[in-house]
Amino acid sequence: MCNFKLLATKGSVVMTNNDKLKAGRAFLKADDWGELSKLETDQQLGKPTPPLQKPIHDGAKLIDLIPPTEFTLGTMPFMEVVKKRRSRRKFLDEPLSLEQLSILLWTTQGIQRLIRGTSIRPVASGGARHPFESYLYVERVDGLAKGLYRYQPLEHQLVLLREGDLSEDTNAALRGQLYNSAVVFLWTAIPYRTEWRYSILSGKLIAQDSGHLAQNLYLAAEAIGCGACAIGAYDQVKADGLLSVDGADEFTVYAAITGRIKDKR
Amino acid sequence: MCNFKLLATKGSVVMTNNDKLKAGRAFLKADDWGELSKLETDQQLGKPTPPLQKPIHDGAKLIDLIPPTEFTLGTMPFMEVVKKRRSRRKFLDEPLSLEQLSILLWTTQGIQRLIRGTSIRPVASGGARHPFESYLYVERVDGLAKGLYRYQPLEHQLVLLREGDLSEDTNAALRGQLYNSAVVFLWTAIPYRTEWRYSILSGKLIAQDSGHLAQNLYLAAEAIGCGACAIGAYDQVKADGLLSVDGADEFTVYAAITGRIKDKR
Repeated sequence: MCNFKLLATKGSVVMTNNDKLKAGRAFLKADDWGELSKLETDQQLGKPTPPLQKPIHDGAKLIDLIPPTEFTLGTMPFMEVVKKRRSRRKFLDEPLSLEQLSILLWTTQGIQRLIRGTSIRPVASGGARHPFESYLYVERVDGLAKGLYRYQPLEHQLVLLREGDLSEDTNAALRGQLYNSAVVFLWTAIPYRTEWRYSILSGKLIAQDSGHLAQNLYLAAEAIGCGACAIGAYDQVKADGLLSVDGADEFTVYAAITGRIKDKR
Repeated sequence: MCNFKLLATKGSVVMTNNDKLKAGRAFLKADDWGELSKLETDQQLGKPTPPLQKPIHDGAKLIDLIPPTEFTLGTMPFMEVVKKRRSRRKFLDEPLSLEQLSILLWTTQGIQRLIRGTSIRPVASGGARHPFESYLYVERVDGLAKGLYRYQPLEHQLVLLREGDLSEDTNAALRGQLYNSAVVFLWTAIPYRTEWRYSILSGKLIAQDSGHLAQNLYLAAEAIGCGACAIGAYDQVKADGLLSVDGADEFTVYAAITGRIKDKR
C-alpha cells in the first residue's frame, strides 16, 4: 500500500497487489530500529519540539468542556466495562450530554500533566509524542450547535470550525457509515510530531497510537451508556477535505462513530 | 520503511531515509479502500476462514486460567483507571497472581462469544479478524514455572512452549527493556487472518489492532495493582527467534512489560 505512491512517483516499477501485501507486512516489522540509532533525528539535532496542538484561530468560538475533576459518570467497575465492549452501529435518537462528550474527548486525548513540555495522557503514545488532532462532527450534543469542531487538549475546550449540518459530507467521508451517530470522531495525524523523535520509524508507531486512543473511546463509551465503532474504511480525500487539512503534513488516520445506546444492564 | 525491503528485492531503486519517511506517511492513508472493492479477496473467493488460533502441539502442557466469571479483581471505577494510566517500567519483586495474569490475557485477547466462527473480544479488530497470537515470557507468576507460554483464547488456557529462565534472550529481544518485569507479552501477527478479508489494506489495520490490545493491557494492569509499558522498539529477528516463528507468515508486531506496582491509592 505504502509503496504504491512512492513507486508511482519514481515511475520505475508497477506495483502489483502482491507487492502491496508484502509491503504491508514489511511495514509491521521493527527492522529499522537498529538503523535509527545511526540517524540524527531532529530531536538529536536540537530542533524545537513540535507544538502539542494546533493553534486556535483568531476570533474562534471556544466551548468549555466539563473538567475531569467534575465527571460524575464512568463509575462502572472496570471489568464490567471490558465485558460490555462491542462495536456499536445502532444509536438512540437522544443527544449526548456535554459531560458524556467531555469524557469521550478527555479519555481519548485529554492531558493529565505536562512534564518538560511532554503531555501525559490516558492513552499511550510512542515517546509520548501524541501526534493526533481530534476533530468532531457534532450531530446531537446538548447545548452544542451542529457542526465541525476541534478539541484543544491543553485548554480542554472545543473550537468551532464550521457551524451547520454537515451530515452529508461526513457520511461521504465515512463511505456511508454515518448511521445515526450523535458525534463522529475524525482523528488526523501530524506525523512530524512523531518523526521529530523517531524519524523513519514513525509510520507504524502512529498507526499503533491511533489504535490506543480508539480502544479508549470504545471503553469510555460503554462506561457511560454510549457505544462506538471505529472506522478504518474512510475516504482519505473526502475526510481530509471535510477537515480542511492538507493531506500531507496533516491527514486523517482513523475515525469513529458514537452515540447513546439502549442500556441492557 | 516498508518500501525498503521491497525495493531492495527489486534492486532498482536505493531508498533514502526521506523515501522511508514518505512511505511511512503513505502507509497511514486509506487511499486503497476504493481499490479493495475491485479486488477479489480470498473471503470473496470462498476460501476457508483462517483458524482463530494456532493449534496446540501434541503432548503440550496446558494450564487452566481463571475464567472471567470468577474474576474478583478489576472492580475499580472505570474513570479512576483511566486517570491512573501511565507507562510503568518500575515493578515490585512480588509475582503476579494467576488471576492477575488471567485478567491481563482475557482483557487483551480473550473470547467472549463466537458468532458464525467470528470471535467477539474485549478489543476491537478490523472485521473482527483478530490476527494476533499472545506469547508470554513468565518470570514471576504464582504457580507457573519460568518460561515461554502461548495463550489459547478459545480454551482460555496457556500452553507451555519452553520451560526455563529466558530472561537474557527476552531482554535482548526487547533491546534491553526487560527491567524487573514479572511477565512480558510478545504479540505476533498472522497477517493472513486479516488479508483473507482486507487484502492490501491489512498492514495498517493490523498495526491499529495491535494498539487496541496494548491499550487494554495498560488499563487492565492499572485496575488490578499492576502496571504495563508497551514496547515498539523490540528486535524483530531476536523476538521472532525467541518465539520460534518464521518471520514471514507469523512475526512479532508489539510487546509489553508488566508487573506489580506500588499502589498509591
